[in-house]
Amino acid sequence: MDTEGKVIRCRAAVAWKAGEALIVEEVEVAPPKAHEVRVKIAASGVCHTDWAYLHGAGRGMEMRPFPLVLGHEGAGVVESVGAGVTRFSPGDKVIPLFLPQCGECECCLSAKTNLCKANWSKTQQGVLADGTSRITCRGQQVFQFLGVSSFSEYTVALETNLTKIHPDALLQRVCLLGCGVATGYGAAINVAKVESGSVCVVFGLGAVGLAAVMGCVSAGAGRVIGVDVNTDKFAKAREFGVTECVNPRDHSRPVQEVLVEMTGGGADYTLECVGDVEIMRSALESCRSAWGVCVIVGWTELEEMRLRPFHLLMGRTLKGTYFGGWKSVRDVPRLVEEHLAGRLKLEEFVTHTLTLDQVNHAFQLHAGGQSIRSIITM
Amino acid sequence: MDTEGKVIRCRAAVAWKAGEALIVEEVEVAPPKAHEVRVKIAASGVCHTDWAYLHGAGRGMEMRPFPLVLGHEGAGVVESVGAGVTRFSPGDKVIPLFLPQCGECECCLSAKTNLCKANWSKTQQGVLADGTSRITCRGQQVFQFLGVSSFSEYTVALETNLTKIHPDALLQRVCLLGCGVATGYGAAINVAKVESGSVCVVFGLGAVGLAAVMGCVSAGAGRVIGVDVNTDKFAKAREFGVTECVNPRDHSRPVQEVLVEMTGGGADYTLECVGDVEIMRSALESCRSAWGVCVIVGWTELEEMRLRPFHLLMGRTLKGTYFGGWKSVRDVPRLVEEHLAGRLKLEEFVTHTLTLDQVNHAFQLHAGGQSIRSIITM
Repeated sequence: MDTEGKVIRCRAAVAWKAGEALIVEEVEVAPPKAHEVRVKIAASGVCHTDWAYLHGAGRGMEMRPFPLVLGHEGAGVVESVGAGVTRFSPGDKVIPLFLPQCGECECCLSAKTNLCKANWSKTQQGVLADGTSRITCRGQQVFQFLGVSSFSEYTVALETNLTKIHPDALLQRVCLLGCGVATGYGAAINVAKVESGSVCVVFGLGAVGLAAVMGCVSAGAGRVIGVDVNTDKFAKAREFGVTECVNPRDHSRPVQEVLVEMTGGGADYTLECVGDVEIMRSALESCRSAWGVCVIVGWTELEEMRLRPFHLLMGRTLKGTYFGGWKSVRDVPRLVEEHLAGRLKLEEFVTHTLTLDQVNHAFQLHAGGQSIRSIITM
Repeated sequence: MDTEGKVIRCRAAVAWKAGEALIVEEVEVAPPKAHEVRVKIAASGVCHTDWAYLHGAGRGMEMRPFPLVLGHEGAGVVESVGAGVTRFSPGDKVIPLFLPQCGECECCLSAKTNLCKANWSKTQQGVLADGTSRITCRGQQVFQFLGVSSFSEYTVALETNLTKIHPDALLQRVCLLGCGVATGYGAAINVAKVESGSVCVVFGLGAVGLAAVMGCVSAGAGRVIGVDVNTDKFAKAREFGVTECVNPRDHSRPVQEVLVEMTGGGADYTLECVGDVEIMRSALESCRSAWGVCVIVGWTELEEMRLRPFHLLMGRTLKGTYFGGWKSVRDVPRLVEEHLAGRLKLEEFVTHTLTLDQVNHAFQLHAGGQSIRSIITM
């Protein structure tokens, strides 16, 4: 392409400071260095984590460096590749990955985990392998959220943090497989390992929760109980396969007591898709003794949960997941194909399609519980 | 036997009140009712849990009814059987089990758990299936700790809470398979599922901890790090196969930081064999991200632990165990046979052999960290 090797000037939503609205600015995106790929972003989902790093920094979340381009649930097309890149060519449809898969580290070589620590601390701090970002604005380096930054018309990712997907994929939908839908779906299938005929409870019926419901249904769960304080989410949850809905505010006693009673002793699997330490405790106590498994899917970095070890001693297991247990480079293309084959919903998660200029509105819709997923199209 | 059908007068150590010394009294042990078995106890280990229910009642432990005959790690010989008992005959060597295996309930029919809830709430409250105990003293009902009460020359157990063992077994040793040794050994093998070549950390080097070490070694662990504040325990721990010993008091920083550094990122498996909520947190944080498994073995009923969900989200699993995951009736005889075949240590746990009159001394030795296991012989 004629932009190859050159700086691209384009638009991006810049977070100048924690807690403040994003500002759509003209930014410069440098050409990819060795083992990097520059991607023209087509669309990006707006995930709770984007919002939480902006508004919860220093509380639930570690403080990240600002200014920052958020967005980590994108999809796009390769514009150009840096030296040494062989797996990607201009024109390839791709999904940037905040979780890499280098294929070489101890974790990548293990079947027990999907975590890969390649350049982990760097991308967590918003820079690429060489310690710098590829985005600048008004002469200042702008950090790349989780090494991705999909709230930009162009971005540069490490080749280990990118996966090529089927050319038939609709980028405005498969972007959701870059985070939320993959995470919830995998949490049920790969981490909880939901079994056929089992009883599941999903706490939080946002995109991650609905994806967890989809995973439970796909695994053949006999009952899937959805829990949320926002009853507006119940209708869609039923479309996804939730068999019963519970609003904790309808009950004077703790919701775990209600759920234990409803399930005759507790669920086989519970999935916490909120990121709230009190709800995590409820989720643990809602699964049954002897073999209940509670999976923490919602994200919080600094907060602490409390639990009675007694609940573990009685045979419950407490686990967590990052990106639903998927080996990112390998598995995201497979999820895209599952979607193309009609076995994995994506369209159904999208409640709003907005432009980059409307990104703050997307955050408002999210924080107000009015959206499941807003998609920003570039 | 000529005692069949008659009340037996014998000696037992009675706990009249929480926190007070036991008193050896003459008690009456009623004949077994239907589906019960009367056992002449030959020996009983003195377990931390006996001590904890006496001295920690209402703090770490739920308050149990008193007066009570403690002891739940015993072995003996069947004296007589109640109506309907077919699996036992007078003269059989047996181990009473605080965890039953009825063989019929949902848990017993599942391969996922060893828990069996047959008469659970009753034995937890110190009575048998009909709501009464078989022991009286000075005209008063004396409760049977966990349905066992092995600090008595005779006791009566439900047939579901008893298992027949090999006639060659030495009762003064195999009694340890009624609780501590089975629990720690099984925690490593059945619950953590320690793999060959792995790195393990065992917190607490008492009998349960040493049994966990034995399990790790038996599973082929590459390194087994033992942690205790009582350095007197290190020599024996090394005999059991601990490769390195750590005293948290030798370090100014939290022991989990020391262990993470020693293991290059954390252990594959950590086992908490103390029952202390702060140590449980250390154990969780000492296992590595991606696939670390932390098993809570130590017992506490009322206390709460705190943890950062972040540690779970990064791929750690937190589990607990009751009786080491063994299906009690089925597996305890197998453990006895492992011992008879020389593959499972028992002798090495025994530091003191005492009489029933010395039971309070056994508690003192335990509380002072001077014993691993004291055996009370009748």
